[in-house]
Amino acid sequence: MKTIELSHGGGGVQMNRLIRDLFFHHFGNEILLRGEDAAVLAMAGPLAFTTDGFTVSPLRFPGGDIGKLAIAGTVNDLAMMGARPEYLACSFIIEEGFALDELAQIVRSMADELAVSGARIVCGDTKVVPRGAADGLFITTSGVGSVRCPGISAGAVQAGDAILVSRDVGRHGACILMARDGLQLGSDLKSDCATLWPLVEALLAEGIVPHALRDATRGGLSAVLNEWATGSQVGLALAEAAIPVSDPVRGLCELYGFEPFDLANEGTLILAVSAEQAPAAEAVLLRFNAQAACIGEAVADHPGKVVLTSPWGSRRYLELPAGELLPRIC
Amino acid sequence: MKTIELSHGGGGVQMNRLIRDLFFHHFGNEILLRGEDAAVLAMAGPLAFTTDGFTVSPLRFPGGDIGKLAIAGTVNDLAMMGARPEYLACSFIIEEGFALDELAQIVRSMADELAVSGARIVCGDTKVVPRGAADGLFITTSGVGSVRCPGISAGAVQAGDAILVSRDVGRHGACILMARDGLQLGSDLKSDCATLWPLVEALLAEGIVPHALRDATRGGLSAVLNEWATGSQVGLALAEAAIPVSDPVRGLCELYGFEPFDLANEGTLILAVSAEQAPAAEAVLLRFNAQAACIGEAVADHPGKVVLTSPWGSRRYLELPAGELLPRIC
Repeated sequence: MKTIELSHGGGGVQMNRLIRDLFFHHFGNEILLRGEDAAVLAMAGPLAFTTDGFTVSPLRFPGGDIGKLAIAGTVNDLAMMGARPEYLACSFIIEEGFALDELAQIVRSMADELAVSGARIVCGDTKVVPRGAADGLFITTSGVGSVRCPGISAGAVQAGDAILVSRDVGRHGACILMARDGLQLGSDLKSDCATLWPLVEALLAEGIVPHALRDATRGGLSAVLNEWATGSQVGLALAEAAIPVSDPVRGLCELYGFEPFDLANEGTLILAVSAEQAPAAEAVLLRFNAQAACIGEAVADHPGKVVLTSPWGSRRYLELPAGELLPRIC
Repeated sequence: MKTIELSHGGGGVQMNRLIRDLFFHHFGNEILLRGEDAAVLAMAGPLAFTTDGFTVSPLRFPGGDIGKLAIAGTVNDLAMMGARPEYLACSFIIEEGFALDELAQIVRSMADELAVSGARIVCGDTKVVPRGAADGLFITTSGVGSVRCPGISAGAVQAGDAILVSRDVGRHGACILMARDGLQLGSDLKSDCATLWPLVEALLAEGIVPHALRDATRGGLSAVLNEWATGSQVGLALAEAAIPVSDPVRGLCELYGFEPFDLANEGTLILAVSAEQAPAAEAVLLRFNAQAACIGEAVADHPGKVVLTSPWGSRRYLELPAGELLPRIC
């Protein structure tokens, strides 16, 4: 079996060959192939710019792998600012001895996910560390995109806004937990890992003006909603029964004592939009996933707080998660 | 001693506190403090865009640390495309148990180095992995800058061009080797680690039009010159005695059997410029470092090859380095 050697990160003959045969082969485009240390791009502002490191374990999980996750994650961060994802950079930190076949599979998975948004990898970096200095593979992806809809912000939610979610929540976190523990609950639970740009593009094409938009990654729905409540100084009032959670995710949460709203998602967005635009926005979301739902509204009461009302009428705060639920989720 | 815990990467309360108290405190600027997943930038094209992962060991070395290196390295990649470094993103992968004090020192070092070019960190990401899954700390920095002098390229060297180097070569590689092996050669050998934008800005201000420009990092002078010879299909003819190498670097190379031209630099640039502009360019370089020198020229002979002439008149090829000299050099 061919494996990554230290020389693949040495800046010499072997590194050049790896870059050409693997990265250029799968990511090849006119800008990347120039092979300069920095890519030169013709772009007009305003731009969105983002970065994310990916350390997920296991590297492959039902519904995706670290490569798909790295592309979708960075593309989604751009899309959440109303920006069309255009150019990506990727930096690999690889442990000596990592199987070349596995690396190739991950790179192919990245290339496939790029095709969903049309974004291109235009520069990159490869480091190889000795055995034991990293666990397999870490990928950091950064991206730039052109902002199509300015003004989207965690600070722009207004009392009266509707809060919508694009699908059932908690899948990615639950899926990694299952994969990590080798659980087989007889379910076909898959991560929601996906590129959200087509969905955002469809919302913008319908004239929807998002006030706030966020994919609910680490910290899940709870983290996003608390950030919005604090950032916009509004209250958020949610109907617990309206928040879609799949049966396997709910079952796993009961087993482990997790809150499904705290679990990470990797292809699920939360949208705050004016009450007038809410029905049109929900119709777009439903075209992509039947689980999409309006889950509540922003209110002038209890600013900075997220309040869940249970099906029985009791109310509780949904807090920002504390502690570490699950390391290396993404 | 306070240390990094898994919860610092969990997306919840502890991560928010770390970001606010450490990263926002030292890197704080109006764009970063917006706290969105992606920064929105008002920039006009053309842009340069680059990324680099840093895994250097040890984290601190004479002349710098991983923080200074991460900022200088990414800023330099932009500067080498003739671009003013403007906005940076940084992604931290931290091992559980890493000392908070040490992290704070590295972050301060990053902030200090940012001040040299005026670039700003506008977005970032923090992942914490369990003990043993990474060795201490890895930083991936990405950057965008606006191109001030278009057309600089490894493919733009012309026969007749002068080849200049901004200072003595091989320092960073030699310094890491010494630090790694605990050698004390009685020398005060320091890494050349430095931000090169002020030097590039001064060259451009003098009207110098670089044909090619590169900081000689992994693979050293040898890698850069071979890339230019191949990319531009010219020969490069160098006078070995003209290439500045400090005594401690030369001594260490003799001890270990290394070629000083293969050793990494982290603040040393190579410039190809027309023969007419060479004296003016050399004068600028000399203002920054007395070791700057013209080391040879591009020729129509032996295209794709780099030829060194020794002080005794013998000639040899300088090849692209092969194998791995020294892992985790940067």
